[in-house]
Amino acid sequence: MGSEAYWDEDPSGLLRVGPGFRLADVDPDAHPGITGGKHAGVKALAEGSKILADLQERLFARSRLGDLRRVLLVIQATDTAGKGGIVKHVMGAVNPQGVQLTSFKAPTPEESQHDFLWRVRRAEPGAGMIGVFDRSHYEDVLIARVRNLAPPDEIERRYDAINGFELSLAALGTAVVKVMLHISRDEQRTRLQDRLDRPEKHWKFNPGDIDERERWDEYQAAYQVAFERTSISYAPWHVIPANRKWYARLAVQHLLIDALESMDLEWPAADYDVEEQKQRLAAS
Amino acid sequence: MGSEAYWDEDPSGLLRVGPGFRLADVDPDAHPGITGGKHAGVKALAEGSKILADLQERLFARSRLGDLRRVLLVIQATDTAGKGGIVKHVMGAVNPQGVQLTSFKAPTPEESQHDFLWRVRRAEPGAGMIGVFDRSHYEDVLIARVRNLAPPDEIERRYDAINGFELSLAALGTAVVKVMLHISRDEQRTRLQDRLDRPEKHWKFNPGDIDERERWDEYQAAYQVAFERTSISYAPWHVIPANRKWYARLAVQHLLIDALESMDLEWPAADYDVEEQKQRLAAS
Repeated sequence: MGSEAYWDEDPSGLLRVGPGFRLADVDPDAHPGITGGKHAGVKALAEGSKILADLQERLFARSRLGDLRRVLLVIQATDTAGKGGIVKHVMGAVNPQGVQLTSFKAPTPEESQHDFLWRVRRAEPGAGMIGVFDRSHYEDVLIARVRNLAPPDEIERRYDAINGFELSLAALGTAVVKVMLHISRDEQRTRLQDRLDRPEKHWKFNPGDIDERERWDEYQAAYQVAFERTSISYAPWHVIPANRKWYARLAVQHLLIDALESMDLEWPAADYDVEEQKQRLAAS
Repeated sequence: MGSEAYWDEDPSGLLRVGPGFRLADVDPDAHPGITGGKHAGVKALAEGSKILADLQERLFARSRLGDLRRVLLVIQATDTAGKGGIVKHVMGAVNPQGVQLTSFKAPTPEESQHDFLWRVRRAEPGAGMIGVFDRSHYEDVLIARVRNLAPPDEIERRYDAINGFELSLAALGTAVVKVMLHISRDEQRTRLQDRLDRPEKHWKFNPGDIDERERWDEYQAAYQVAFERTSISYAPWHVIPANRKWYARLAVQHLLIDALESMDLEWPAADYDVEEQKQRLAAS
């Protein structure tokens, strides 16, 4: 269950969306797989950061010698659920050289003239990279569904298109890690309130966030459908209870460690004669 | 001289390439502006990391409300001088969301069909970002000069083209921070030796590194010319003694802090009515 010592039980299985999964049954306050609270969790995250950083360097090193594998982390969540915190606290521990972050906003006019996957394909991580999607192609079956931004049959088509896209990624050696950060509606109010109370957080608030909040149940339903249609063996969804930020970060970090450890990332062998180069160096 | 408490003297002025500068006079072992050694330096870097991360968040926040300013850090150096360490240890402390890193390799066939600045312009950081060039357009007047990859009159033209390009960046509100990490030839041998001695470092070594090393003096001369032609008020060069990694990292971190502090980055004011939104939130 990974080389981290602090889990009581491997959270990967506990968080994975399988048959019969119901989002409504997930407690956003829970912390499956680990006992202890915030203090221990923050300490564990620092430990895991070293493990993750080492694995990332191995992945990157191997790519320099021809290994084409890469990782794609897809992060979906409602506003304030902690996407930015994952980027900052989980991915921030990794060498920036090996991280390829894409934040998907509302499509630009140019992007709108293409299929919804066009901009997503262009953001595919390169070999040796950990790609991170802060929001993703799933917006095209979430907000698009809730807000009727596309006709129902187009939305239907998209689930299959997404599965095909992710299968092609997996076939090319991409470990696709999909996470949905799950907070409660009350927790969101508290977090939005905090953004309104603190002037240095005002820039993070947008009046549109409340409009979206008013569609809470519709979004939950849209997520449920997305999980049923796109949680597949080669790219399963994980729903992360996220009322406790320390837990959400630790769980996502674990999923990345898990994905990387199952790649068996030995340091790559030199593609030159080491002794010969030592002699050249000594003479230079 | 910046809000960091640990400098005895502002290193920005000490490291800046001005009239009469001679690269040959710079001691790669020196640590201008600070006393103390590695232990204190590493501690100082952690302190500075918090300052830099805060400034970066302000820059990013302001960009969300229309401030178009950004920073571009250009890192040049010979192999093993510590470019990767700057990326990892200085930029690694900043939210990945606000960093846009480009590593320039030998031009691809497509890139070669364009002017040398074509690929560089495409890598310009967006508003609110700290762009980092790991190698840069300066390779086109360094290796290109040493290896005769372009005719002399084309190389001549490039210095002016670079000045024009950087002036256009500065005019758009980009703080251009150019650093050359300066190590001694002996230090490079030690570091290359280390890469050959440790199997987990073999991937970082390339036999071509020794070929380049054999042109050491020609590279130093090419740098000297580049400094004379392109160290300009709006985009001055800084030569960073880099035999001590702790110093090089601290000095580059300082230059970034300095650039950001001179931007006067107040938190942006809300572009909505805060009280009105508080009421909406309470009712939602």
